[in-house]
Amino acid sequence: MSGKRVVITGVPGVGKTTVIEESMKRLAGEGIPYKAVNFGTCMFETAKAEGKVEDRDQMRTLDKDVQKELQRLAGKRIGEMEGNIIVDTHASVKTPVGYLPGLPAWVLTELKPDMVVLVEADEDQILMRRMDDESRRRDPEGSRSIAEHQGINRAFAAAYGMLTGCTVQVVRNENYLLDHAVEAMARVLR
Amino acid sequence: MSGKRVVITGVPGVGKTTVIEESMKRLAGEGIPYKAVNFGTCMFETAKAEGKVEDRDQMRTLDKDVQKELQRLAGKRIGEMEGNIIVDTHASVKTPVGYLPGLPAWVLTELKPDMVVLVEADEDQILMRRMDDESRRRDPEGSRSIAEHQGINRAFAAAYGMLTGCTVQVVRNENYLLDHAVEAMARVLR
Amino acid sequence: MSGKRVVITGVPGVGKTTVIEESMKRLAGEGIPYKAVNFGTCMFETAKAEGKVEDRDQMRTLDKDVQKELQRLAGKRIGEMEGNIIVDTHASVKTPVGYLPGLPAWVLTELKPDMVVLVEADEDQILMRRMDDESRRRDPEGSRSIAEHQGINRAFAAAYGMLTGCTVQVVRNENYLLDHAVEAMARVLR
Repeated sequence: MSGKRVVITGVPGVGKTTVIEESMKRLAGEGIPYKAVNFGTCMFETAKAEGKVEDRDQMRTLDKDVQKELQRLAGKRIGEMEGNIIVDTHASVKTPVGYLPGLPAWVLTELKPDMVVLVEADEDQILMRRMDDESRRRDPEGSRSIAEHQGINRAFAAAYGMLTGCTVQVVRNENYLLDHAVEAMARVLR
Repeated sequence: MSGKRVVITGVPGVGKTTVIEESMKRLAGEGIPYKAVNFGTCMFETAKAEGKVEDRDQMRTLDKDVQKELQRLAGKRIGEMEGNIIVDTHASVKTPVGYLPGLPAWVLTELKPDMVVLVEADEDQILMRRMDDESRRRDPEGSRSIAEHQGINRAFAAAYGMLTGCTVQVVRNENYLLDHAVEAMARVLR
Repeated sequence: MSGKRVVITGVPGVGKTTVIEESMKRLAGEGIPYKAVNFGTCMFETAKAEGKVEDRDQMRTLDKDVQKELQRLAGKRIGEMEGNIIVDTHASVKTPVGYLPGLPAWVLTELKPDMVVLVEADEDQILMRRMDDESRRRDPEGSRSIAEHQGINRAFAAAYGMLTGCTVQVVRNENYLLDHAVEAMARVLR
């Protein structure tokens, strides 16, 4: 309940994880500790603790209402954590049936974030980063589609802000300028 | 309660009705039946059943709170329908005093959509389709204004997603590519 | 409760105050009186009446929950005012930690606006107006950043519309065309 709860989002390939890790290091060096929590992982752990699943693949086979309740419980758990918390998640996830909101109302009211950060980059740069990253299999997506996703994510973030009163910050993570992105993120987290 | 509830929206002239009808035909051929419900018509029928109006023109003369309640009741009626339902409506309606949300909170919480689909097209193509369509009298609107409307509709759809957890899908209905739009819609509905 | 409640928003330098004042004059001449209420001022007066602060600078030192409650009370006070009311506020305020929503859910449910108007202008023109305005010290901001703010504000406004059912209107206030902006605003307010 004390400390800040900062939700950090970004489309795949934007470099969200790097920006989170580097800014956490910088802040730790300044005596400002943050703990990063991955929302999906927290939801899975909640499901396991509740005896609903044994492994992560089973998560998507769960009944919709059960998933919703697990989402809510994960939001509650994170909302009750002490200290400064980074919540690593998505403003929306691109699925075959559309953009799935990462923070629906029942999560937000439990999580009570202070800020939602959108890590963004030029869509063409994101495309190139995805092509370079051979470690992950992602559905191929053109740069226009990436731009659409980033645009929709801003709208989701504004809706999250309306419901919770949290601020919405855009942090750009452009090529060759990681240090700027990390500093911008650190400024928000400080 | 069983089945999917898919809200399909689009600005006038985007070809929403055609895409709905063709994709329903395709899915019927695959043994996946959908029923299409027009939200405005359902609201009018609700008003008639409640003895509030006799014809459709009287709808706009109703008291604001009565309208709101009728909207809610129509949402409830559709939300309780069995089977796969397409809800034909607008993300927002352009009125002289601004964009009126098609699915305010009190409708969404009753309707509980699984998806909101935005049928979109290039604004210039929409303009041309409107000019060609002599059967309807529409207020003349430039292509920039159409683009504004489509942009605002994405933001409305994101807000709808935040409240209900529904996915938000964009289906493009470009000139000469109706078949692609129909297939994209069928993929969402399947 | 009677009359219209119109929320008018716009980024700094867009000329919101001028458009409000001129359209109020025009409407007064037509026998349609409007009262303009500044949301921030109303919140400060509420805080003073509640004995929380003595001067305006103390407002930001208040506890977050106290601020939230004062916001809600200000919304309630304005929501209960009689006659036609213009609420002069921001769709979002740009702060060092991001865009802060001007009308979070707990304000909206009390305020119950009929319309939210976004006064907008070309971002480059806004930049020039800010540079010309020596009376105010503002954080320097480039035109791209102004465009980002205006874009995010549309998304906030859509979320406000979703929750309350209010319409969202865009009124452009371009250089040399103040009279058009005033007439567009008057049309909304009439």
